[in-house]
Amino acid sequence: MTTEWKSVRLYPIPSIIYLVHNNVQFATLTYVDTSTYQIMGNLKIVTTGILFRLFLKRKLSNLQWMAIILLAIGTTTSQVKGCGEASCDSLFSSPIQGYMLGVLSACLSALAGVYTEFLMKKNNDSLYWQNIQLYTFGAIFNMAKLVVDDFRTGFENGPWWQRLLNGYTITTWMVVLNLGSTGLLVSWLMKYADNIVKVYSTSMAMLLTMVISVFLFNFKPTVQLFLGIFVCMMSLHMYFAPPSMLVDLPLTSKAAPESAVEVSVDRKAAS
Amino acid sequence: MTTEWKSVRLYPIPSIIYLVHNNVQFATLTYVDTSTYQIMGNLKIVTTGILFRLFLKRKLSNLQWMAIILLAIGTTTSQVKGCGEASCDSLFSSPIQGYMLGVLSACLSALAGVYTEFLMKKNNDSLYWQNIQLYTFGAIFNMAKLVVDDFRTGFENGPWWQRLLNGYTITTWMVVLNLGSTGLLVSWLMKYADNIVKVYSTSMAMLLTMVISVFLFNFKPTVQLFLGIFVCMMSLHMYFAPPSMLVDLPLTSKAAPESAVEVSVDRKAAS
Repeated sequence: MTTEWKSVRLYPIPSIIYLVHNNVQFATLTYVDTSTYQIMGNLKIVTTGILFRLFLKRKLSNLQWMAIILLAIGTTTSQVKGCGEASCDSLFSSPIQGYMLGVLSACLSALAGVYTEFLMKKNNDSLYWQNIQLYTFGAIFNMAKLVVDDFRTGFENGPWWQRLLNGYTITTWMVVLNLGSTGLLVSWLMKYADNIVKVYSTSMAMLLTMVISVFLFNFKPTVQLFLGIFVCMMSLHMYFAPPSMLVDLPLTSKAAPESAVEVSVDRKAAS
Repeated sequence: MTTEWKSVRLYPIPSIIYLVHNNVQFATLTYVDTSTYQIMGNLKIVTTGILFRLFLKRKLSNLQWMAIILLAIGTTTSQVKGCGEASCDSLFSSPIQGYMLGVLSACLSALAGVYTEFLMKKNNDSLYWQNIQLYTFGAIFNMAKLVVDDFRTGFENGPWWQRLLNGYTITTWMVVLNLGSTGLLVSWLMKYADNIVKVYSTSMAMLLTMVISVFLFNFKPTVQLFLGIFVCMMSLHMYFAPPSMLVDLPLTSKAAPESAVEVSVDRKAAS
């Protein structure tokens, strides 16, 4: 447990980045429609890879870079609107500011993620102590906002803490519990795994949600959903499989067909 | 130049396979709509890979298998109908016979390709002598069909050779010239490269055609066209790039971020 100010003062930084990020997201939405917004969100995968390389100095092989790009392409493919969709917003018709804000948003999101990973891994402090620091600053910033709001409205509804839990139903508490657990799991991921693992798990969760929606909500599956899932699966395997499993070393793959007296070991298509 | 019957007799085989294949194609079209038919055509990429492995005994690395599957996914993605398309035929609503015939068609097409490669590479005969054998049998089969048709109609329009070139315009001759050149180039590919190279070049040509159509015919580009092109580019690189370029050997990619005093060689994302 490191309690010196030199270390603690780094923990508000992700909160501040997320603060800016959330506002950029709302600004983006004033320029682009929701489906364009959703598709631009996949850019985060690529920016996370880039910042992961630049700031955390983690080396990625060319194949892993390709896997990251394919993951972004795969998630985008699964989100492309199908033939016969009710509204057809064009992806290419938003004002340039919308795209620029989208890119900025992707960079900020990646930066916050990479910075959190840096914080979690920089020393061997307990995960819970690190979480407390991380979330306390977030809570302080939010409280400050509530206090400012109270002053602005002249306390006409009473101070914020008296109506903090107004309208909470069992569903609300379950959502809070869910988000809280997710937060803990993400911290765990950042400390013991890394941002790329997080990006993969988020993408897979998104695809899984789409597949489950097909069964639960009669959501009509599109061809692009299946194609996207396949691309993401390939990407997953490319990123995490040991290179020796992917390529033959020493090189035998270029053997001429005439010399086909080699042992016929059957390889199955990696899928 | 091998002229013995033992060798020559193998050359009608591709013609026969193509004969069956063409009829299967028409049968498929009676069950499925054209867009489903077009999308199922991409299955040929995967079946070519499989038969290439089984019959020509060419070893492919896991990564190359993944590249082949990605190529099929990429070309399919580019063909998926976009939001706002005039007619929306569903890919999942054809009778089962349609899909079975589609698979059969993909297998036959791959078989003919693989067999042609086997023929072209089995000896060092001149490419032209091999072509002559290949096309002569095709021509004989077609003439036989014309003669049979003539007999069936009782020669009411005269013998077929008198109206063989009826209605030929300059455009027709250009198409013939184009197809003839393509045939020669394919033979060349089969002799000096292989079926997988052919599959890649066909797919790239298809994508190039779609991109050119955007400019020439005001064909509206879809998001899935771009996504498909990216997937195919990744696939191309995965298949043909030397493994040492794709993965780092010995393994350095798993270095922990704490030990980040390594030389910061900048890798660019392969794209």
